[in-house]
Amino acid sequence: MIVIAERINATRKRIAQALEARDADRIAREARIQAEAGADFIDVNAASNPAQELENLLWAVGVVQQATDTPLCLDSASPQALRAALEVVEGDAVMLNSVTAEKAKMETVLPLAAEFGTGLVALTMDDSGLPSTAEQRVDIAGRLVEAAKAAGVGPEQLYIDPCIQPISTSPEQAPACLEAVGRIMAAYPGVHTTCGLSNISFGLPERGLVNRTYLACLIMAGLDGAIIDPTAEGMMDTACAADALAGRDEFCMNYIRRMR
Amino acid sequence: MIVIAERINATRKRIAQALEARDADRIAREARIQAEAGADFIDVNAASNPAQELENLLWAVGVVQQATDTPLCLDSASPQALRAALEVVEGDAVMLNSVTAEKAKMETVLPLAAEFGTGLVALTMDDSGLPSTAEQRVDIAGRLVEAAKAAGVGPEQLYIDPCIQPISTSPEQAPACLEAVGRIMAAYPGVHTTCGLSNISFGLPERGLVNRTYLACLIMAGLDGAIIDPTAEGMMDTACAADALAGRDEFCMNYIRRMR
Repeated sequence: MIVIAERINATRKRIAQALEARDADRIAREARIQAEAGADFIDVNAASNPAQELENLLWAVGVVQQATDTPLCLDSASPQALRAALEVVEGDAVMLNSVTAEKAKMETVLPLAAEFGTGLVALTMDDSGLPSTAEQRVDIAGRLVEAAKAAGVGPEQLYIDPCIQPISTSPEQAPACLEAVGRIMAAYPGVHTTCGLSNISFGLPERGLVNRTYLACLIMAGLDGAIIDPTAEGMMDTACAADALAGRDEFCMNYIRRMR
Repeated sequence: MIVIAERINATRKRIAQALEARDADRIAREARIQAEAGADFIDVNAASNPAQELENLLWAVGVVQQATDTPLCLDSASPQALRAALEVVEGDAVMLNSVTAEKAKMETVLPLAAEFGTGLVALTMDDSGLPSTAEQRVDIAGRLVEAAKAAGVGPEQLYIDPCIQPISTSPEQAPACLEAVGRIMAAYPGVHTTCGLSNISFGLPERGLVNRTYLACLIMAGLDGAIIDPTAEGMMDTACAADALAGRDEFCMNYIRRMR
């Protein structure tokens, strides 16, 4: 599974404080613990203060790149901030988070992914809002694949995210997202799927248990990426077991190695 | 989820020894810890020594009934042993483990389930052996439902078990069983599904992790029962989270109560 590690996110108060205070040790430590836990990409979101986002993002990108060799996932709603960060990122592997099927988003973000050859998290929402059925998600995913292709972004660059919603308020969305993942993987060969997993447990106690339980179900349905905290208790163990159950781990060798 | 608790099974050496030695404390303790952990039925298997199975089963049934009020699941390959145990079981709720679609099994076990009005674990295997595809499992389940109906056993009495096989040797069987569960629940209204869960992890380290991870996926696919060890670490917590994810826990109240 392709792990996009989510801890360096300015919506978390301590990360916002570390960005403001230029606390490089704190940010570097967050990068290292996630890399050691198995991150394939380290998400960097610096959007606590719109006026300073660009400056904070560039600083954080520098700190994370000094701390680890793990590729980055640049996370911003601002195409300007994404472009500026892309210009200072080292190495070829990089991900952008995110595009949607909203017209303005596709017009500004798809060209960046094409120009820099990046991976791209693509949310199944459009100008009419969030989807509510599996069918709508599959449909929006198809439009994203088409628009990406037209912009020069191949399906293998796309990490389609079904926009998971909390079971505490929208219980019908958990099976809908699960179905959508399976259908998207079947309908659009080459695309990846991912998800902002922790939305599922918003408002509940022991969120980690709900998160990793749902992740197992999503992996079994075909999910091959996730935006998660790889340091969370049991998360990577569960993902490893689910990969074995999904037949993605020949002779269960990864699982056996991890457990021993 | 309907939990059939599996610990009192004479294929476990310590249980076989306790049966031989008439160690009522040991058997009673196994019954109590499983009842406290959330068992809906306590499986009792006394088949370590064919010559003494009937006698051992009747003794164990007596001990378990003294120890808890939890209904029993009588587990034997011998219709004679099942009948003898049924005649001494107190209360109305009881389960038999198991019938298959083998001709001889159906002819001997279905009449017992009809006569005593019991639940019945029904394995999707027939005279040609174990199934290998989801399709075969759905087909055999259909024959079991029909034969049960003809014998006076309603679909709601059946707990259809897709015959889980180890991913260490048969990795393609995990998705096949998952698909079979969903299709059986959709095709045969009223039936339950269950499974001998721990087969999935045979030959692997940290079997509990694989067991509970697969259980979550099965519940999300529609499984409403399981033959498990409810005292195993994380098992009932995972089942509770999966029930909430599957939309079977209104407002997540059971989950919230369990976690607090």
